[in-house]
Amino acid sequence: MHAVKDSGTVACFGSDGGSVNISILGSAGFLGRKIAANLAKNGTMGNKPVTGLTLFDLDETPKPTAAFPIIAVAGNLVNLPVVAIPPDTDVIFHLAAVVSAQAEADYELGRQVNLRGTDAVIDGCRRLVDAGREPPRVVFTSSVASFSGGQDAQLQDDSRQIPANTYGAQKAAAELILADASRRGFLDLVALRLPTVIVRPGRPNRAASSFLSAIIREPLLGLPADLPMPDAFTAWVCSPRRAVDWLQHAGAMDTSLMGLDRSVNPPGISTTIAHLLQALEEVKPGASALVQRTENKDIANILGLWPAAFEAIRARTLGFATHEPLIEVIQAFVEDDLAATRAERGMF
Amino acid sequence: MHAVKDSGTVACFGSDGGSVNISILGSAGFLGRKIAANLAKNGTMGNKPVTGLTLFDLDETPKPTAAFPIIAVAGNLVNLPVVAIPPDTDVIFHLAAVVSAQAEADYELGRQVNLRGTDAVIDGCRRLVDAGREPPRVVFTSSVASFSGGQDAQLQDDSRQIPANTYGAQKAAAELILADASRRGFLDLVALRLPTVIVRPGRPNRAASSFLSAIIREPLLGLPADLPMPDAFTAWVCSPRRAVDWLQHAGAMDTSLMGLDRSVNPPGISTTIAHLLQALEEVKPGASALVQRTENKDIANILGLWPAAFEAIRARTLGFATHEPLIEVIQAFVEDDLAATRAERGMF
Repeated sequence: MHAVKDSGTVACFGSDGGSVNISILGSAGFLGRKIAANLAKNGTMGNKPVTGLTLFDLDETPKPTAAFPIIAVAGNLVNLPVVAIPPDTDVIFHLAAVVSAQAEADYELGRQVNLRGTDAVIDGCRRLVDAGREPPRVVFTSSVASFSGGQDAQLQDDSRQIPANTYGAQKAAAELILADASRRGFLDLVALRLPTVIVRPGRPNRAASSFLSAIIREPLLGLPADLPMPDAFTAWVCSPRRAVDWLQHAGAMDTSLMGLDRSVNPPGISTTIAHLLQALEEVKPGASALVQRTENKDIANILGLWPAAFEAIRARTLGFATHEPLIEVIQAFVEDDLAATRAERGMF
Repeated sequence: MHAVKDSGTVACFGSDGGSVNISILGSAGFLGRKIAANLAKNGTMGNKPVTGLTLFDLDETPKPTAAFPIIAVAGNLVNLPVVAIPPDTDVIFHLAAVVSAQAEADYELGRQVNLRGTDAVIDGCRRLVDAGREPPRVVFTSSVASFSGGQDAQLQDDSRQIPANTYGAQKAAAELILADASRRGFLDLVALRLPTVIVRPGRPNRAASSFLSAIIREPLLGLPADLPMPDAFTAWVCSPRRAVDWLQHAGAMDTSLMGLDRSVNPPGISTTIAHLLQALEEVKPGASALVQRTENKDIANILGLWPAAFEAIRARTLGFATHEPLIEVIQAFVEDDLAATRAERGMF
C-alpha cells in the first residue's frame, strides 16, 4: 500500500511492501500487553504478516508466544535506547505515559515522560529516516483528558483542547509536536484521543478515572469499590477490545486523507454511572451493592471538567469502528480478563 | 488590585500593592526594546510605578535611561540564570523565541529555545512561588503562525490551532504548557497570539513574514525590497505601537475573568499586499516602485497556510485596544523608527 502524502513523499506501510515490524513503547501497560497478545495470536496487522515485535518498558515485558521474533527491552523512555526502535521498524505504538492523577501529583515526572519522552520518540524516528527508511507510522495515545468543558460539553471534531489537568495539557502539547514532526517527514502520525478505557483488568492505577473500571471489576471479583462521583455523572468511555482495534487500525490505515490534522477523536460511548451499574447488575445481579459512595475532591476536580460526549464523525470516515453496546463491554471483561485478574491478584 | 482567581488564590499585580518589578526575556528583540523604552519613558505600567527592570537576552541589552534601576543580564534562555527573574519580580514578558523560518531550518534549535526555554521560565516562576511570592504574571508572545487554514480562513476565537510550521507548533505547545502552569499556580499567564508585526525597524530577520515589513521599510529608506507573495495575498498584521500597548495591557490586566483559557487573539487588521503598497504610496509617492516581485517557495509554503483574519471578540471584551488604520501604521514607522533604522544601518 503506497499513498502519496501532502508533502509529496510516499506514506509506506511495511517498507518492504509485504510485512511489518512493530515496536510498542509502554508495552507493559494494559493496552500494550493486549496489542502484543493480539499480534502474537493473529500474526498479522492490517492484512500484513508481522515479522518482528519489540516490547519496550521500564521493566522487561513478558513475551507472548508468537510465530515471529519478539525482543523485550527495558529502559527509560527519556533516554530511549536505540534498540527500542530497531532500524527496520515500520510501526511504533507510543503508549508510554505518566497518567492523570500521577502527572498532577508529580509535575517533573509528567514533564519528563510525557514531553521529553515524546521528543525521544521523534528523535528515534529521525534516526530511521536519516538512515534512508520511510518515516515510521507512529500511533500515539492522547486522551479525552486533553479536553475540558465538563458535563455539559458535547464536543465536535474541531473543538479546541483546553486542558484542565497536567496530563491532558502534556498530551495535547505532545500531539502538536508529533504532528509537526509528521509534517516534516520524521514520522507518519496518527494520534488517538482515547476515551476512558473500561473495564481495565488487574489493579487500580494512578489515573483519576481508575474508579470507572473499579466499580465494575471489583464487584465482579466479589470486592467492594469506591465511587467518588454521583450516579448522574456522564463519562466518555470505550472498551479495551475497541481501543486495541482502533490502535491497530491507526497502525495500518492510509494517512493520506488526514492532511495536517493527525489527531482523531474515536467513536466511544457516553454513559452515566447509573447506566454502568445497571449493566453490571444485568451481568451479575446484586453486584452493584458492593459499590460504596464516597467523596474524593481531587478526582472530582479532574473528572468534573472532562467532556461528556464527542460527535466523532471524522473517525468514522477514517474507518474507525463504531462502539459495541455497554453490556458487551462488561461481558467482554468477564470473557477476556476476569480469570487473569483473579490469578494476578492471588484470588483462587 | 487584588482579584480572586478560579483556584481561589489571589491574582496579584505588584505584590506590595503599589509598584511593579518587571523582567523582559528576549529584551534585545525589537518588541523587547520598545517595551523597555516605553517603561523607561513613562516610569509606570498599568498606573503603577515601575521600581525595577531586568533585561535578559543572549547578549547584554543596552539599557535605556530611566528613573528606576535597570539590570541587563546576558545568557541562554534554556539555562536561565536565576538573576534573569529576580526574587521580587511581578511581571515577566517572555518574548524570547527562535522565529518561523529559523525554526523550520534548525529543528533542534527551535525545540531548545521555544520548548525547553519555556520550561525554564516556568521553573524560574516556581522558584518565586516556592519562596512565598505571588505567582508572577507571565506575558507570552504566541503567534498567528500557530494557526493554519490559509487565505480562506476567517478564524473565530475558539478556532483550533493546527499549525503548518514548526515555530507555530512549538508556540501552540508552549501555550498549553504555560496555561497548565498557570492553572497550577506557578505563574499567572496571558498568552498573546500576535499578528505579523509591521513595520519592523532595523534589518530583515529570520521570520518568514519578514518581507511584510521590508516592502514598506526598504522603499522608505530608498532601497529595493523583494515581494515573494502576490498583491492579492491577505495577511493578519498589527503595528509595533499596538503590539507594545497590548503586551503592557496583558501585563497589568485582571486575569480573573479568563478561566482556563489564557490565550488571546488580539484585534489586528487584515490587509492585502495591494492595500499595503497603496498606503505606502500615500505616505511616500513613488516608493512602491522599489518593490520587486520575486518567487520564494519556502516563504510561500509557510505563509500560504496562515489564516487571513480573526474575529477577535474576546480580546475586545478583555480590554485590548482596537487597531488604528493602516496608513497610521506606516506614518508611525516614519515617526518612531525611520531615523534610528537609518542610523543603525549606517545610512546618513
